[in-house]
Amino acid sequence: MARPPQEPQALDAALERALDAARRGPLAGGNPRVGCTLLSPSGEILAVGYHRGAGTAHAEVDALSQLPRGGARGSCAVVTLEPCNHTGRTGPCSRALAEAGVARVIYALPDPNAEAAGGAAWLRGHGIEAIDARQAGIAPALIDRARDLNAAWCHAVARGRPWVIAKTAMSTDGIVAAADGTSQWITSPEARACGHEIRAGVDAIVVGTGTALADNPRLSARDRSGTALAHQPVRIVVGSRDLPEDSHLRAAGVEHVRDHDLAGLLERLGERGIRRVLIEGGPTLVSAALRAGVVDEWHVYRAPILLGQGRRAIAPLGIATLADALPIRLVNSRPVGADHLDIYAISQEARDVYRTR
Amino acid sequence: MARPPQEPQALDAALERALDAARRGPLAGGNPRVGCTLLSPSGEILAVGYHRGAGTAHAEVDALSQLPRGGARGSCAVVTLEPCNHTGRTGPCSRALAEAGVARVIYALPDPNAEAAGGAAWLRGHGIEAIDARQAGIAPALIDRARDLNAAWCHAVARGRPWVIAKTAMSTDGIVAAADGTSQWITSPEARACGHEIRAGVDAIVVGTGTALADNPRLSARDRSGTALAHQPVRIVVGSRDLPEDSHLRAAGVEHVRDHDLAGLLERLGERGIRRVLIEGGPTLVSAALRAGVVDEWHVYRAPILLGQGRRAIAPLGIATLADALPIRLVNSRPVGADHLDIYAISQEARDVYRTR
Ligand SMILES: NC(=O)c1ccc[n+]([C@@H]2O[C@H](COP(=O)([O-])OP(=O)(O)OC[C@H]3O[C@@H](n4cnc5c(N)ncnc54)[C@H](OP(=O)(O)O)[C@@H]3O)[C@@H](O)[C@H]2O)c1
Ligand SMILES: NC(=O)c1ccc[n+]([C@@H]2O[C@H](COP(=O)([O-])OP(=O)(O)OC[C@H]3O[C@@H](n4cnc5c(N)ncnc54)[C@H](OP(=O)(O)O)[C@@H]3O)[C@@H](O)[C@H]2O)c1
Repeated sequence: MARPPQEPQALDAALERALDAARRGPLAGGNPRVGCTLLSPSGEILAVGYHRGAGTAHAEVDALSQLPRGGARGSCAVVTLEPCNHTGRTGPCSRALAEAGVARVIYALPDPNAEAAGGAAWLRGHGIEAIDARQAGIAPALIDRARDLNAAWCHAVARGRPWVIAKTAMSTDGIVAAADGTSQWITSPEARACGHEIRAGVDAIVVGTGTALADNPRLSARDRSGTALAHQPVRIVVGSRDLPEDSHLRAAGVEHVRDHDLAGLLERLGERGIRRVLIEGGPTLVSAALRAGVVDEWHVYRAPILLGQGRRAIAPLGIATLADALPIRLVNSRPVGADHLDIYAISQEARDVYRTR
Repeated sequence: MARPPQEPQALDAALERALDAARRGPLAGGNPRVGCTLLSPSGEILAVGYHRGAGTAHAEVDALSQLPRGGARGSCAVVTLEPCNHTGRTGPCSRALAEAGVARVIYALPDPNAEAAGGAAWLRGHGIEAIDARQAGIAPALIDRARDLNAAWCHAVARGRPWVIAKTAMSTDGIVAAADGTSQWITSPEARACGHEIRAGVDAIVVGTGTALADNPRLSARDRSGTALAHQPVRIVVGSRDLPEDSHLRAAGVEHVRDHDLAGLLERLGERGIRRVLIEGGPTLVSAALRAGVVDEWHVYRAPILLGQGRRAIAPLGIATLADALPIRLVNSRPVGADHLDIYAISQEARDVYRTR
């Protein structure tokens, strides 16, 4: 087999391309941003791939898919993150690389995800050279860029509890249900389709009994045609009240957690290997999660309507005065149908200050 | 004097440039978007100017200012709107064009503003040819574009009551004052500076007695250094309650309107020649104005904080069920310091439906 390239310059260039590609992936959230460049034995760039978000091909598979069968044989894969080694909704990347005949794998960062990690060891066990970027002589500044790219994700994975997204669909004046309780639908069909895509990307969906009783939701992830997707997240309802016999969630085998300890619930979910959790409200549960300091991201679908009265999007947070407001940070905003999806990050720091008050 | 250009093609091109420039002006609001192209006697483009918003040079003056003294002599001005003829915060454009020696003025639309109109007649009376674009043989499609550019403004001016902007500074969950009443400052210094610029561009500012009593505001328009601007809008407080002797607004000679008839107030302001009114809240007054169907635009400074409890941005609007929500349309959104300024338009149609409910 031809000897793969060793020149640090070619490897630097390859990692740089992989980083640029990774940057086009999910901006924030429970998924890492990963890029992969495949180099020919003589050091030419064969393909550059990246990960577009939960449920889509990983960067390595994306790059391999651009080559004809056998086209990656003897190549070197330069990846921003250690290839995964577990079978989630997509197969393990370590196996895909081995099957394609890749001869060498260089990764900028080890995978902090205990479940997925081990890709490098598995590759080595199968006769493929797998080393980290520093060993390969890649410029430290590029390795730092790879770390910055996924700082939040690495942190969330390393701390062992799931990444938590809280979601709210509200009027522009912050109302989630009109005075008579009507709330379906505040947002456009496009916004609801987007919500289904996000459901498809998480491992668990949580609502409070208030929402389960008021809306009798299914909480299933469906595609644009309304068909249930193959991957369905675990469904969880929290609260002491019983659900009626004929509730859709009961029929779907919902897990009913009867206490109000959200931090404890998330810890148990983390122990079960659940990495991404979506809290779909209502206002009581979203506020309780914010108060418990467990929300990493708040997704707001903002509809171009005013309601004036009705249920507020955020229930009381125990904030008496302006100086104690909970800071949030807008990380992304885009139109979705007639609405806007605003993604806010809640920093570890803000959560800690807030939780200890 | 050299004969100014008559070729319709040169005039079409000049109006097209003026329209493109005008489009860079204020996106929505109490000010028209105007552009002006100056053509040399031989038909070359000498300068293109546009109006950047209230308090800044009009398009004609902006274009003239780009030429050396005497450089516009004998030229032809092609303008998207009939030059104004009144002395507001900027001098009349008709006079500026005459003084610069412009020989001919072609305008796409007559000015619908009774007070400012008459620029063309004034020019003719001073020996300058002033004709509308159709007479000059300009393509009708371009004249339509000029009309579309300022449809809302023309409508507001023609209907005879002022253009009304309601302004709210709120947390992302729609709260304008914390539970203990603190509301200064929800938004960043940059957002407040932007608010002062908007104050400088209106003819009157209105608040309710609730705000006057709670915040004791000055409602003056100041520049970035805090110095009061030369133009100060008329200040108006509405509501039956008295203001204390030492109130800042009293010291500033506020007009106190003791009834709750907002439509009547705006009509009287229109009769006094007031074209642009800013309602600076609070929630009771903004909601009353929305209910009265008199708000053309809602400016929201959205701060990246959550409050959970406190005064809602929009007081009850009498909307009981989701289907009756008041539709609004986002026409512009931009970051201002740490905040976002979202500008929403409320269509005549939405206002009418809503008002008659
Ligand atoms: N627009 C949207 O995005 C959206 C989304 C969801 C719901 N909604 C609307 O919101 C309304 C329901 O609101 P909601 O606030 O009653 O529903 P909720 O937040 O789903 O449920 C509230 C319940 O959650 C339980 N709970 C679990 N952990 C808790 C904790 N740590 N602290 C407090 N309570 C905890 C309590 O149940 P127990 O009392 O049983 O113990 C509580 O009563 C409905 O009108 C629904 O349509 C809107
Ligand atoms: N963040 C912001 O953008 C912002 C802006 C302004 C104020 N605020 C806050 O809002 C709070 C004050 O709110 P507010 O709602 O009491 O103040 P407001 O809206 O300024 O004043 C309410 C008063 O306006 C009078 N009014 C006049 N026309 C009316 C009509 N058509 N319908 C009903 N009332 C009419 C009534 O006065 P009478 O009872 O005297 O007749 C009413 O009590 C303060 O905390 C202030 O800091 C926030």
